[in-house]
Amino acid sequence: MSGLDLARLRAETPGTAHGIHLNNAGASLMPAPVVEAVKAHLDLEARHGGHGAAERAGDRLAAVHGSVARLIGAAPDEIALTESATRAWLMGFHALARTFGPRERILVSRAEFGANVVALRQVARVTGLRVETIPCDADGRVDCAALARRLGPDVRLIAATAIPSNGGLVNPVAEIGRLARAHGIPYLLDACQMVGQRPVDVAEIGCTLLAATGRKFLRGPRGTGFLYVRRDWIDRLEPVMLDHFGAPLTAEGYAPRADARRFETYEHDHAARLGLGVAADYALALGLDGIAARCKDLAAQLREGIAAIPGATLHDLGPDPAALVTLTFAGIPAEAVRAQLAEAGIAAGLSLHAAAPDDAAARGLPPLLRLSPHYYNDADEIARALAVLARIAARA
Amino acid sequence: MSGLDLARLRAETPGTAHGIHLNNAGASLMPAPVVEAVKAHLDLEARHGGHGAAERAGDRLAAVHGSVARLIGAAPDEIALTESATRAWLMGFHALARTFGPRERILVSRAEFGANVVALRQVARVTGLRVETIPCDADGRVDCAALARRLGPDVRLIAATAIPSNGGLVNPVAEIGRLARAHGIPYLLDACQMVGQRPVDVAEIGCTLLAATGRKFLRGPRGTGFLYVRRDWIDRLEPVMLDHFGAPLTAEGYAPRADARRFETYEHDHAARLGLGVAADYALALGLDGIAARCKDLAAQLREGIAAIPGATLHDLGPDPAALVTLTFAGIPAEAVRAQLAEAGIAAGLSLHAAAPDDAAARGLPPLLRLSPHYYNDADEIARALAVLARIAARA
Repeated sequence: MSGLDLARLRAETPGTAHGIHLNNAGASLMPAPVVEAVKAHLDLEARHGGHGAAERAGDRLAAVHGSVARLIGAAPDEIALTESATRAWLMGFHALARTFGPRERILVSRAEFGANVVALRQVARVTGLRVETIPCDADGRVDCAALARRLGPDVRLIAATAIPSNGGLVNPVAEIGRLARAHGIPYLLDACQMVGQRPVDVAEIGCTLLAATGRKFLRGPRGTGFLYVRRDWIDRLEPVMLDHFGAPLTAEGYAPRADARRFETYEHDHAARLGLGVAADYALALGLDGIAARCKDLAAQLREGIAAIPGATLHDLGPDPAALVTLTFAGIPAEAVRAQLAEAGIAAGLSLHAAAPDDAAARGLPPLLRLSPHYYNDADEIARALAVLARIAARA
Repeated sequence: MSGLDLARLRAETPGTAHGIHLNNAGASLMPAPVVEAVKAHLDLEARHGGHGAAERAGDRLAAVHGSVARLIGAAPDEIALTESATRAWLMGFHALARTFGPRERILVSRAEFGANVVALRQVARVTGLRVETIPCDADGRVDCAALARRLGPDVRLIAATAIPSNGGLVNPVAEIGRLARAHGIPYLLDACQMVGQRPVDVAEIGCTLLAATGRKFLRGPRGTGFLYVRRDWIDRLEPVMLDHFGAPLTAEGYAPRADARRFETYEHDHAARLGLGVAADYALALGLDGIAARCKDLAAQLREGIAAIPGATLHDLGPDPAALVTLTFAGIPAEAVRAQLAEAGIAAGLSLHAAAPDDAAARGLPPLLRLSPHYYNDADEIARALAVLARIAARA
C-alpha cells in the first residue's frame, strides 16, 4: 500500500535484528547507509585530519544543504545546519527576540516542547513581554479561530509545535501559517516529530522559521538539526551569537552572511552532517507519502490493539494522529511498563511533564508510555509488542 | 627524552601511514582508540536507537566531564561539554556580556582568534562598550605592565587567546590571571591551541572561563569542545540560550542548573562526546609534560631547518614558542606552497588574516603557511618536509 519494500528496508536497518524499536520519536534506528557515511568520514579524518578529509568530501558536504532543503520544499540558501533542533530553534527564536519588548505578546501552542517553553519564559523575564497559550479546539489542536481573535499589532511571534512529543496530535500548521502571513507576524514552527514522518512543505505551511532534528523520524545521526529561514526574513535576523563564518569580518565590523548559514558556525561535525544528508536523501528516495501512510497504518494497529487491553488508556488527541502513541495502564507507572518492555527486547519511550509542560498541566497528565513505530517496523513486531503489553496489564 | 613510546603511538595513529600530517593546529590525526570509541557508539545507536545506546553507555558518558576536568585541573561540575570551542567561547562570553553597558571596556589580546573578534565587535555595537587591544611587549606577548595600567572599575572583561592560531606565540596566561584576580575582573581564556599540547592548570592560570576544542592537539573528534566555568562564577552567569536541560522548569519559571552544565543542551552528539573523553584520557595517560617537550623539540627542528632555507621567513613571536610554525617564502604565496606540500603527501595549514585579524593588521602579515607538528610526528617526517620545502623554495 505504501509502496515501500519492507524486506529491503529492514535488511538495511541493522537494529531490527536486535529488538523491536518503538521509540522512533525519541531517536530512530539509523539505516546502514547513514551509519556508513558517518563512519567513512571518521576514517577519512583519521587518515588525513579534519581539514584534509573535508577537502576530499567537499562536494558531498556542499550537497547537504540541498538535500535538507528538498525535504521541506525550501531552497538551499534558506537552510542552516546545526548540532541539534534545540540549537536551531533557540538560534532562530533569540534572533527574533532581540527586538521584543514589554507590553508585547507571543502566542504559543499549548503542547509546545519543553525546551521552547524554557526559552519563552527566559525571554519573557528579560524583556517583560507576555507569553500566551493559544486555546485548543475540541480535538486538542491549536484553535485557529481563537488564534485569529488574539492576533493584533502587539503580537510579535506565533510559535507552534507541529506534532508534540507527548502524543499523536497534529496541529493545523498551514492554517496557522495563513493567519500569520495575513497579519505579517513571524511564525516559528518546531517540526521535530514531523520531518521524516510526513511530507513537509514550508511554502504550504507558510512558516517563517522551522526547526527540526536529524535523529527522530528522519533517521539521521544524533548531533544534527537544521533551521529553515524564509528568504525574506534572513537579512532581518541577526543571530545573537555570530562567529567569523556566520559573519565575516569587514574593515571595522562584521557582515552577516546573506544566506541562512549566518546561523551556523565555522566549526561543526562534518561526519554527522554527511550522515544527515544521507538520511534526507534516503527519506526522499522512499517518498514521504509512502512513509506517512505506513506510519499511520502501524500507529492505527497499535492504537486498536491497546484499546482492547483492559486497564489501558490512550491519550492521543486529534484526528489523523501521528505515529506517537501514548498510553497509561491503571495501577502501573509508565516507567515500570517501559522497563518491562525493555526486558522483553522492546524499546519504548516515556513522555514526562517537562516534554510539553503546559499541555501536561492542562490535561493533568501523568507520565505517559510512548510507542512510536516507523515504516521499518512490521506487523509481527506490532503484534508482539501488543501481546507483551497485554501480559503486563494482566499482571497489574 | 619525552618518555613517549613513538613506535606504539604511531602504530595507534592510522593516519601516519597515509602521509605526513603537519596540520595539528587545524585538526590532528585521531588515535585509533578515539575513532573506535566514536564508531562503537554509532553502532550501538544503530542497534538500539540513540536512547537505548545512551543507557547502555551511561557510565562512560557520565565520566567524560571528569576526564576533561582532569586535563585542566578543574572539577567535573565546572565543565560544560559543547559541540565546538566556538560555541563554548560564545556561550561564556555572551553570558558575561548580558550585563555590559556603554562606557564600559573589554581588554583583549592582540592575536585574539577571529571568531572571538566578531563576537566582541557585535557586543560592542549592541551595548556601546569599547573593546581595547592590550599592547604587546617586545616579544609580541600580552604586555602585562601595559595591561595593569589599563585596568579600572570600568573594565568588565579580559579576553585572551593562550596560543594564537597564527603562530608560535605563547601568552603569559598566568600573569594575566593574577592581574584579573587582583582586580576582580572576569578573565576568558581561549585555550584551543594549548589544551592537548601543553599542561593546563586553571588554578595556576587563574582564569574565570576557559574554552577549548577537541579536534586540535587533543586529538578528539570534530564536533566537540568544552567550557570551563570557575565554580564561584557559575551562578552569576545565566546563559543567553537555555533549554530544559540547562534550566529545568519550575512551577512558573525555570531554574538554571547549579553546575557548569547550564551551558549545555539536552540534545548532543553522544558518540563524539565519548570520543572526546577517550582523547582526554589518552593525553593524560601519556602525560602533558612529555607531550609538550616533544612538541617543542619537533617545532624547533622545523624552525631550524626553515631558517636555513633561502627566501624563507619565520613569523613566530615570543620565547619558548609552541608547535605552530608559520612562514612565508619570497615569491610564492602560502597557498601555492601548501598545495605543493599536499601533492607531496604533506598536510600543512594556512593562517589567513581572519584567524587573528588585529595581529595580522598590526604586523602587516600576508597569508602564512603553518606547520604544526605533534608528538606522533617523527624526525624523518620533519626532515622530509624540510627537504620538500627547500625544493619548493629553490624553484621559486
